[in-house]
Amino acid sequence: MKIVFLGAGNVAHHLARECENAGHEILAVYSRKKIHADELAELLSGAMPTDQLDFSESEGQLFFLTLSDDAIDEVVARLVLPEEALLVHTSGAKPLDDLRKLLTIYSDVPVKAGVLYPLQSISRKIELVWKGVPLCIEAEDEEAESQLIDLARQISEEVYLVNSEERLRLHMAAVFANNFPNHLWAIAKELLEQQNLEFDLLKPIIKETLRKALEADHPADVQTGPARRGDQGTMSRHLSLLEDEPHLARIYQILSESIMRWYL
Amino acid sequence: MKIVFLGAGNVAHHLARECENAGHEILAVYSRKKIHADELAELLSGAMPTDQLDFSESEGQLFFLTLSDDAIDEVVARLVLPEEALLVHTSGAKPLDDLRKLLTIYSDVPVKAGVLYPLQSISRKIELVWKGVPLCIEAEDEEAESQLIDLARQISEEVYLVNSEERLRLHMAAVFANNFPNHLWAIAKELLEQQNLEFDLLKPIIKETLRKALEADHPADVQTGPARRGDQGTMSRHLSLLEDEPHLARIYQILSESIMRWYL
Repeated sequence: MKIVFLGAGNVAHHLARECENAGHEILAVYSRKKIHADELAELLSGAMPTDQLDFSESEGQLFFLTLSDDAIDEVVARLVLPEEALLVHTSGAKPLDDLRKLLTIYSDVPVKAGVLYPLQSISRKIELVWKGVPLCIEAEDEEAESQLIDLARQISEEVYLVNSEERLRLHMAAVFANNFPNHLWAIAKELLEQQNLEFDLLKPIIKETLRKALEADHPADVQTGPARRGDQGTMSRHLSLLEDEPHLARIYQILSESIMRWYL
Repeated sequence: MKIVFLGAGNVAHHLARECENAGHEILAVYSRKKIHADELAELLSGAMPTDQLDFSESEGQLFFLTLSDDAIDEVVARLVLPEEALLVHTSGAKPLDDLRKLLTIYSDVPVKAGVLYPLQSISRKIELVWKGVPLCIEAEDEEAESQLIDLARQISEEVYLVNSEERLRLHMAAVFANNFPNHLWAIAKELLEQQNLEFDLLKPIIKETLRKALEADHPADVQTGPARRGDQGTMSRHLSLLEDEPHLARIYQILSESIMRWYL
């Protein structure tokens, strides 16, 4: 397919290159800041970088909106697409209907809306193995759906049809399962380094806990720790270390209460 | 060494067998409930199960207190040890001084106090590879310290001298890095299953996030998600899914605020 990327951030960087690897042609890369479009276009064969949104003369068939949710509305309002293009966003939280409504308002030609949401945390500079990334597909008709499924299957072995409601729930669950633990690891590192202790000491327990949690029937089956045991003495000792950091004490208390509510 | 286990829970199950593997002799296993002592003793060569705490005639040299912190005080109050024994607890949060004070009050014969804290989440039925488990050692004199270090080095390649203050901080950081993420994975699984979505869909993102967090200079460097971007629209959408679960909404808000405080 002939593909255009609207947005040149983390997802575009990884997805555009993977589409090329799968044999597709990336015609152009748009970014509001031309230099960002240049950066990504340089990594691709023959993609044109641009800060213009008039694609009326483009041969593009598939337009990927790889922008933050907030930026999508603004870009679609100014976007001019060729007839019969397929416009696809990659967001976990944005309903397909939102995109349909924007197109109904702003597109003068018939264009289809779709979603290809990669359920993975994507950082620009860290290599991504697409093969195992769940790709959640939604489209407004079967033709668009099968186009997206075909493309997705060239990229990953894990392709799912997921409606907007399910996708939002997956995205929210991913925040609990992924963004929040990552933040807690960052907090743990800070807490240790305040006293010149090495974060490396915690790496074995972190890895082992993940291994057990994912192998168990339910992560709840392998929960350990003072809250799991209702060990108030230990929880008080820990909180005494957080006296000068009330916002961390609050996180400690709320998560401990949640664990106690689950088990006790 | 000749070793006695006081307590027959998760830690005792794994540690007693590993001490045997390292060539030590487990003389006895105490548990308040005799049947628990029986269960562990059956897995060992020649250990005597008991629900009695008079070890005055025992040849034991090292007595491991593998009990919850709350139970330690009660057991030490009733414990009768042979002269020159080394009494060692395995807790992350209990100061060595606490054990010293208990011995000063309750032991009629000279006994030394020590700590061997395995910095790992230990579940009874899940195999544990001791080699990489950080063992944090503390003892009240150099002789006891070197006895514990020798034993610890037979069990693991990661042996550290850690004082009580450092140990409590490590233990608290481990709660943030280990117990809380595990609980968040359990929550994520429940949130998905309420709508018949599979937790398996999240496993690739969880594994990848851990890999990136532990390989980065700092887990904070690879943080992603709506809070990291300050994406209020997505956070509102997620919170709308949690309307009927206010305690989960509260966790979502507090952790999101903490991420925003870190980055924005």
